[in-house]
Amino acid sequence: MEIAEHPFGNPNFTGKRWPLADVRLLAPILPSKVIAVGRNYAKHAAEFGNEVPKDPMLFIKPSTTVIGPNAPIRRPRGVGRVDFEGELAIVIGQPVKNVPAARAASAILGYTVANDVSARDLQKSDGQWGRAKGFDTFCPLGPWIETSLDAGDLALKSEVDGVLKQDGRTSDLVHKIPELVEFVSGVMTLLPGDVILTGTPEGVGPIEDGQSVSITVEGIGTLTNPVQDI
Amino acid sequence: MEIAEHPFGNPNFTGKRWPLADVRLLAPILPSKVIAVGRNYAKHAAEFGNEVPKDPMLFIKPSTTVIGPNAPIRRPRGVGRVDFEGELAIVIGQPVKNVPAARAASAILGYTVANDVSARDLQKSDGQWGRAKGFDTFCPLGPWIETSLDAGDLALKSEVDGVLKQDGRTSDLVHKIPELVEFVSGVMTLLPGDVILTGTPEGVGPIEDGQSVSITVEGIGTLTNPVQDI
Repeated sequence: MEIAEHPFGNPNFTGKRWPLADVRLLAPILPSKVIAVGRNYAKHAAEFGNEVPKDPMLFIKPSTTVIGPNAPIRRPRGVGRVDFEGELAIVIGQPVKNVPAARAASAILGYTVANDVSARDLQKSDGQWGRAKGFDTFCPLGPWIETSLDAGDLALKSEVDGVLKQDGRTSDLVHKIPELVEFVSGVMTLLPGDVILTGTPEGVGPIEDGQSVSITVEGIGTLTNPVQDI
Repeated sequence: MEIAEHPFGNPNFTGKRWPLADVRLLAPILPSKVIAVGRNYAKHAAEFGNEVPKDPMLFIKPSTTVIGPNAPIRRPRGVGRVDFEGELAIVIGQPVKNVPAARAASAILGYTVANDVSARDLQKSDGQWGRAKGFDTFCPLGPWIETSLDAGDLALKSEVDGVLKQDGRTSDLVHKIPELVEFVSGVMTLLPGDVILTGTPEGVGPIEDGQSVSITVEGIGTLTNPVQDI
């Protein structure tokens, strides 16, 4: 179903419907910023020998990382191992600052699926993750924004070439969605379309040229992207 | 001198002039992203016992950190020590990817002055700097963009309440401006107005409620901001 303008507030529907097979989906939102939360599933923190941080550990992915469904993740030459990380993404619906957890729902437009693509070797050698997580195409988002959903306990699965790699549930988030909205909005003003990546469960791993990676979040859909060396 | 639209390309001048005392300067640019380079002056790296990284160490400040001259830096409650960091900022003039150092000048609109305000204690406890460097108002920029300037060897001075704290030269940058443009644009597409903070020299230190911090870069001007607890 086509909407006339942007998805915020009460969007007007044009009445036109397009079969999914006839359209190319773009990223459902072009965020002014993507805020990501590190080590927010205990078993993922453990798989790299890390502790779960007491406070949510925030880092920023530049907006130029965002691509939509089926667009290629471009793996740069010479950066070593590049990993997929399947995540539930919160999409912010209005300008907010200092939102209490109890009112977090009012700040949220909906949810989508994200792949927090990460150059694993550079994360270690650089220390800060601005480069390792910041390459163009390193933030696939989609396939769309689901606006009517209780995201508290959803299955999250990642597959590479059809082989199941991650099999988590959002109920295992260390810092839950309302707490994340309170915490992040306590630091920075969130604008409509801004995206919070909530963290990845265990099972992350490398992706290679020619492979295809699919992240599925129950109640939302599947985000698939091919991988291409450049 | 007033310009009719944005400053990119060949801006049209309206012919109107305003005395500086009669205008309130806003941030000279609203960047889609602010890319910052950590530990890019050897003596600043040393003052916290850190090595100079082999590759530029990148982190991202969200665009919601940006304020203009004379707007207050708002120091949040309970975050511990907050430091000023005076820096030379590169302002990008056109969309670019993979710019070789030899052609970096063609990607640059000009230069401005930045204060990479940093919650020092949170940098340590969080590990990633997304929160510590990402609070609203933590990226003063200004007072304007100087478009005709060789920025290779400029004096950079920071004062708190008129007391000199930093006294560096951009010739001491470990990774120089052309190299930074090549490196950053090799990772991510840079868009018009994007800002690269080139790093801070030694002498950083805390700022407190009621103080005023001024950063001066030779050939550009002085960026002054009051500090206000919230």
